[in-house]
Amino acid sequence: MNEKPLILITNDDGVKAPGIRALINYIRPFGRVVVVAPDRPQSGTAHAVTIAHPLRLELIASETDYEEYNCNGTPADCVKLAFKIVMRRRPDFLFSGINHGSNASINIIYSGTMAAVLEGALAGVPSVGFSLNNYSLKADFGAAQKFIETIVAEVISGGLPKGVCLNVNIPDVPADKIRGIKLCRQAEGTWEEDFDEREDPHGGKYYWMKGVYAQIGNGEDTDQWAVEHNYVAVVPVHFDLTANHGMELLRNRF
Amino acid sequence: MNEKPLILITNDDGVKAPGIRALINYIRPFGRVVVVAPDRPQSGTAHAVTIAHPLRLELIASETDYEEYNCNGTPADCVKLAFKIVMRRRPDFLFSGINHGSNASINIIYSGTMAAVLEGALAGVPSVGFSLNNYSLKADFGAAQKFIETIVAEVISGGLPKGVCLNVNIPDVPADKIRGIKLCRQAEGTWEEDFDEREDPHGGKYYWMKGVYAQIGNGEDTDQWAVEHNYVAVVPVHFDLTANHGMELLRNRF
Repeated sequence: MNEKPLILITNDDGVKAPGIRALINYIRPFGRVVVVAPDRPQSGTAHAVTIAHPLRLELIASETDYEEYNCNGTPADCVKLAFKIVMRRRPDFLFSGINHGSNASINIIYSGTMAAVLEGALAGVPSVGFSLNNYSLKADFGAAQKFIETIVAEVISGGLPKGVCLNVNIPDVPADKIRGIKLCRQAEGTWEEDFDEREDPHGGKYYWMKGVYAQIGNGEDTDQWAVEHNYVAVVPVHFDLTANHGMELLRNRF
Repeated sequence: MNEKPLILITNDDGVKAPGIRALINYIRPFGRVVVVAPDRPQSGTAHAVTIAHPLRLELIASETDYEEYNCNGTPADCVKLAFKIVMRRRPDFLFSGINHGSNASINIIYSGTMAAVLEGALAGVPSVGFSLNNYSLKADFGAAQKFIETIVAEVISGGLPKGVCLNVNIPDVPADKIRGIKLCRQAEGTWEEDFDEREDPHGGKYYWMKGVYAQIGNGEDTDQWAVEHNYVAVVPVHFDLTANHGMELLRNRF
């Protein structure tokens, strides 16, 4: 009997991104690892699922306690295929990332990395997403290693509350500058989008989206504050979007 | 001075879907209407945004107090383009739908219709998504009309609490069977996915996603219960995914 836990790893930057390669290296010592990740970058896909065209899986590597698959779908597709087709069961744990760029604050709702984590939580699998506050493909993930190992070990030994997953955001500073791990709530924030308006060679207009993160609230109990002050931010996340305070305010109107 | 409110309408089934055509007809009497909607079906796109390729807008109709645009992007893209390029300001209200199919319970996290609504709320615009509990393109939206008009009138006259938008799900029964409007919380639910495994003419395997909604909790205060019992379900929704109960349970571990 193999008592090592079965662990699914995925991401949204694609299977070749340095972030997932680092995460695989850090997590392999903890158990049997199966990687099912998008075959190309899928940043900004959020919780999209593919229902209008078929999905494919390609086996890339098969070693002792390790298998790796590419998939042509979104991160949420990868998780669903991993559970039903690749593993034929739910894994014991799911880890997603390391995302190239912040998923703190409102970024979570656009994040494929965190959509994969929510898919895991929906299926009852303790699931954690890791993101580094650096969008570059050349980011250095070394400082993140010991904090990721600490969180992975804690989740494997103690599990997570039912229906709760974790959104972990790591500051992009050397290891000795990181002040520790801090439990936080999601900061209020938004993106102030703008668009580059351009003209194609045939006179047609087109638009490139560009955005700037706009802080709305930034209390010391938020993930955004924590990352900006060199803490590893851990936010417990669920998938109930009900605005309970709104319920009271609307009670007599609907 | 034109005192009619400026209203943005969008959806995720595409600008040709009968659901948005019905919604446009019901809402035009309330103000100046601008439609910016996807040029093709975008069900299941969730909160995806388009950052890797350019977006285009096509003006389809321009009449007194009415303009209509097609866009090659997602519902969230449509809202961002509408605010920044089409209207050059935030509208007074945003309405999305009528979605062909339920967005009650966990469906909200996969829904492009509701992603558009959340985009509106993030920008401070009172926003409502409407969905009919019938996936057919031949669905009859007639019974929904007077309930949609009631909710639109209430939101236009009284606004919505800051950061709160509404997810409205309408049962697919004749008008005289609908028992009224009910304020609800999001039901716990999930999808039990399965995949059709097939082989292409070259021997390659591919997979079609198919899913069955699986009820987890179904209290009488939930949207799922309300729709199943012929109420129009109204859930106040926000974009803070923090699991506050999880915070307490994890306080001593991270």
